[in-house]
Amino acid sequence: MSISIGVDVGGTKIAASTVDEHGAIRHRARRETPAQDAAAISAAIVEVVEELRERHRPEEVQAVGVACAGFIDAEGAVVRFSPNLAWRDEPLAERIVEQTGLFVVLENDANAAAWGEFRFGAARDVADMVMVTLGTGVGGGVVSNHAVLRGTHGMAAEIGHMRVVPGGHRCGCGNRGCWEKYASGSALVREAREMVGGGSPHVAELAARCGGDPSALTGGMVTEVAQEGDPAARELLEDLGRWVGEGVASLVAILDPQMIVIGGGVSAAGDLVLEPARAAFARQLTGRGHRRVADIVVAQLGNDAGMIGAADLGGARRLEASG
Amino acid sequence: MSISIGVDVGGTKIAASTVDEHGAIRHRARRETPAQDAAAISAAIVEVVEELRERHRPEEVQAVGVACAGFIDAEGAVVRFSPNLAWRDEPLAERIVEQTGLFVVLENDANAAAWGEFRFGAARDVADMVMVTLGTGVGGGVVSNHAVLRGTHGMAAEIGHMRVVPGGHRCGCGNRGCWEKYASGSALVREAREMVGGGSPHVAELAARCGGDPSALTGGMVTEVAQEGDPAARELLEDLGRWVGEGVASLVAILDPQMIVIGGGVSAAGDLVLEPARAAFARQLTGRGHRRVADIVVAQLGNDAGMIGAADLGGARRLEASG
Repeated sequence: MSISIGVDVGGTKIAASTVDEHGAIRHRARRETPAQDAAAISAAIVEVVEELRERHRPEEVQAVGVACAGFIDAEGAVVRFSPNLAWRDEPLAERIVEQTGLFVVLENDANAAAWGEFRFGAARDVADMVMVTLGTGVGGGVVSNHAVLRGTHGMAAEIGHMRVVPGGHRCGCGNRGCWEKYASGSALVREAREMVGGGSPHVAELAARCGGDPSALTGGMVTEVAQEGDPAARELLEDLGRWVGEGVASLVAILDPQMIVIGGGVSAAGDLVLEPARAAFARQLTGRGHRRVADIVVAQLGNDAGMIGAADLGGARRLEASG
Repeated sequence: MSISIGVDVGGTKIAASTVDEHGAIRHRARRETPAQDAAAISAAIVEVVEELRERHRPEEVQAVGVACAGFIDAEGAVVRFSPNLAWRDEPLAERIVEQTGLFVVLENDANAAAWGEFRFGAARDVADMVMVTLGTGVGGGVVSNHAVLRGTHGMAAEIGHMRVVPGGHRCGCGNRGCWEKYASGSALVREAREMVGGGSPHVAELAARCGGDPSALTGGMVTEVAQEGDPAARELLEDLGRWVGEGVASLVAILDPQMIVIGGGVSAAGDLVLEPARAAFARQLTGRGHRRVADIVVAQLGNDAGMIGAADLGGARRLEASG
């Protein structure tokens, strides 16, 4: 049995587990993330790795995969930049290798999650897939011909920053009109607050749910009210879904994947978002009629996708490296 | 010396050559394309192949690569659909193999051109590149980690059909707002004619060049007048260049290539288009500051790129197939 350790380093917590060759989680461990102290983050990662390693026979665990938000170099060794952590050109793999003696590979968290879904989740039967994570922003990962598409700087699949509206909403990246300003959970909340602020009788249910205070409205509330059948909340999710489907159509024009896997918090709304997304996608796909319309499906591994994907990448790269 | 035959099947002519392992063209041959007769096209391809083969020693030539507009299946054997030729699910590779006994592989013409530039042209020193062909439409090819990105249906890199303007100009693909409606030679002509039709003194030079008839205006005329320094013509090329650069920024967000190679007729305008393209790209690139801004350069192989790329793919795939 070959076991790898997957570590997902988030802005608030470090989640880790041992994962077997079938993608099944064997043991879990976690820590708070000391986000502002680069050395302390590495130390915490080493701690969870050692904790998990002790749950198995010594020779059983040989590789570690670490998923983290940010830009990872082409070798999977250095974190060039992380938006939420104190890492700048951090040789993280080397630090973990020094402490543990294990083979270590780093991967961007969205790429790792895509790889997890590709290997063991919703996309386990396809060769080409795109994962679209609809959360606060829109993240993504691309697997093309059975490999993670990383790009020259490991910065590929920043799909949330494809521009969909010239002169559109300002994005945190500095540009205007990025896809994530229209297809993310934040976009849903912005639109919902604006709608409720308008005060039309049409929005009475949404207004009641947030106690009349638009600034208290959350994406979860919109989804709940929509699930109860409220037309205004459903419109908001339909609009979001349409932006999702239209953006996916552009991605498919470029990448021609067989499957689109939708993850992230917004995917909890299920078909209330996915049905309008599928309809908009089918309407907008170029070359429709000359190809099967790619499936748009919900992710299966939830928050574990990055951890599982990282573990699997760690194991696979170790095998490659050892010939 | 290993020689392969590259064949580029266009709507009006079939251009072919023998290409050596350094990408150098040794001998050329060509025929008119009998575009409406599927069997006659295959026969003409076999003719040019046999003609070229006779210029070399028999054992020297072992593979053929055929580039054509259209959708090619994943095995590089069948033309699923070609917009300008009478092919529908045409088993073209098999037909050529039967007649010649050579190893044959098919590739989409834009992918083949990208591969040619990647192996022997402007992008010969990089691992990841995108080719953008600015002609009547906008075509493209993607090389990622030293391989053509083909997608599930061989339909990847239809970059001209990325949507850049919701509700924008109607495209031949059936959608609205596709990139090629803003960044192609046809878009340049549309804008130029509209501008000249307006009759402002600002457009006097352009109006004079087409004898006062906007419908007689061509992209080449706009470029000529711009090269002579005319401000109106320069504005038109600047607008085009800005759309090019902004679209490239979205492609780079998704693919993170090291280099963008610009080919096609519009690239003849050189820096009149490329300088505004580079400026818009640098302004619009997400994650700027965290990566080198990818180079935007002009293609080097001109109309031979597809032929050379196809020949090289034929030779390479034959080596793979023979182990």
